[in-house]
Amino acid sequence: MGGSVARAVRRRGLARRIVGVEGSSEGLRRARSADVVDEVSTDLRRAAGAADMILFAVPVDRLASTILLAATACGPGTLLTDIGSTKAAIVQEVETRLPEGRAFVGGHPLAGSEKQGPEHADARLFEGRLIIVTKTERTDAGALARTAEFWQALGGRVRVMDPLEHDQAVAWTSHLPHVAAAALAQVLPTDLAALASAGIRDTTRVASGDPELWAAILYQNREAIVGPLRRFREQLAWWEQCLGRGDRGALGDLLAEAKRARDALGG
Amino acid sequence: MGGSVARAVRRRGLARRIVGVEGSSEGLRRARSADVVDEVSTDLRRAAGAADMILFAVPVDRLASTILLAATACGPGTLLTDIGSTKAAIVQEVETRLPEGRAFVGGHPLAGSEKQGPEHADARLFEGRLIIVTKTERTDAGALARTAEFWQALGGRVRVMDPLEHDQAVAWTSHLPHVAAAALAQVLPTDLAALASAGIRDTTRVASGDPELWAAILYQNREAIVGPLRRFREQLAWWEQCLGRGDRGALGDLLAEAKRARDALGG
Repeated sequence: MGGSVARAVRRRGLARRIVGVEGSSEGLRRARSADVVDEVSTDLRRAAGAADMILFAVPVDRLASTILLAATACGPGTLLTDIGSTKAAIVQEVETRLPEGRAFVGGHPLAGSEKQGPEHADARLFEGRLIIVTKTERTDAGALARTAEFWQALGGRVRVMDPLEHDQAVAWTSHLPHVAAAALAQVLPTDLAALASAGIRDTTRVASGDPELWAAILYQNREAIVGPLRRFREQLAWWEQCLGRGDRGALGDLLAEAKRARDALGG
Repeated sequence: MGGSVARAVRRRGLARRIVGVEGSSEGLRRARSADVVDEVSTDLRRAAGAADMILFAVPVDRLASTILLAATACGPGTLLTDIGSTKAAIVQEVETRLPEGRAFVGGHPLAGSEKQGPEHADARLFEGRLIIVTKTERTDAGALARTAEFWQALGGRVRVMDPLEHDQAVAWTSHLPHVAAAALAQVLPTDLAALASAGIRDTTRVASGDPELWAAILYQNREAIVGPLRRFREQLAWWEQCLGRGDRGALGDLLAEAKRARDALGG
């Protein structure tokens, strides 16, 4: 998603120069070949020293340490923000250990895709999308306003949330669906894959996401996910009961309720 | 989906005249307004008497009785076939009660959509799609061949299956995903609907399907669905355990296995 931010920034002319920092030679090669940034570098501290704003797009289990490393090298006016899918642990670790005079604001664009890497970068990814920006009692008001303006300039709609409230919300709206899709893909007998149609493809699509990125997300937010997952299993047990006793009326009621709930999600 | 068949037949010039039979005035109005057939009628027996082929597109709980009613009125050369999402009960009831000299072949195009009604009819819906055609020891070989040729003429790929084998397969590939999507939509707290992004929209999309149509399908195939549903719940319980004990390695393994399984489904 870092690539999409770079493309969107370039398209709207929001930066004089975009430097992409990559830790691996493979990452460098892909960023160069996709032509999403003006320059690629492996030297985070050096790039940080010259930046007005740094957007961190690394797996959630490496975000805090990466942000704190850059924070020691950048100037006092540099805006530090991220696009990680979890927020509470990252924001707390960064805000408590940030050098004096540095400002960090957590962010999470609700605009993911199972496709990953700069070759899928999409300059219009954020248009009309909701971007969560976090606020705590330590969050700098000026940095928060700059972060919100940044996302609005890319076409996003900004919503300010507490980091923990964010994590509990996405446990329901993103992490539970991911677990459901993954478990569904897992249990399908492999000899039936040829019979898959649009329905099961939609239902399981997110399970194509990068396993390592998702392991880090689910692990970091595991405490918030367990409750929703239990609630989901209870609801499935109720469906199983209604099916088992052949209660057609109950099935109709469940399906009608589900349709109302699904239609409220749009798209 | 009857409307899509009609549009596809017209587009490929496969019928001299297409008569749509509708039981309700609302159905008649929609069929006329969508202009998918040459003529609309409420008289099934009269339309059946003049037809070379009748394709039944009614909810699965009314298929057998509707087919048997038409079978008493049509000529001996008329091909009777359907597009119901379940097959075993329908095929058995029709084949055991069909008048002498009449031939019925069960069918199920794996080409559904949550959108319903003639206004969503799509002439190209079946191109490249898999169409299941059922065969039992009573199925007439000539009628089976005509049914297969019909779907191939619409661009479909035909696979012949036993009706019970079909029902057990779609319990996994279609009915379990539907229950999963519906239950997921149901448990999502309503105040979080505004945070829904593409992931949960995909995962729950099929739950927007018509509740009455789906109640009939799930009810009719309930015995085949209970086992897959129990297996799915067990798999989710395992995920819950791995999350609960914070087993990051196990989460990574589960996600990697799920990705392999999902990628095998295509699309």
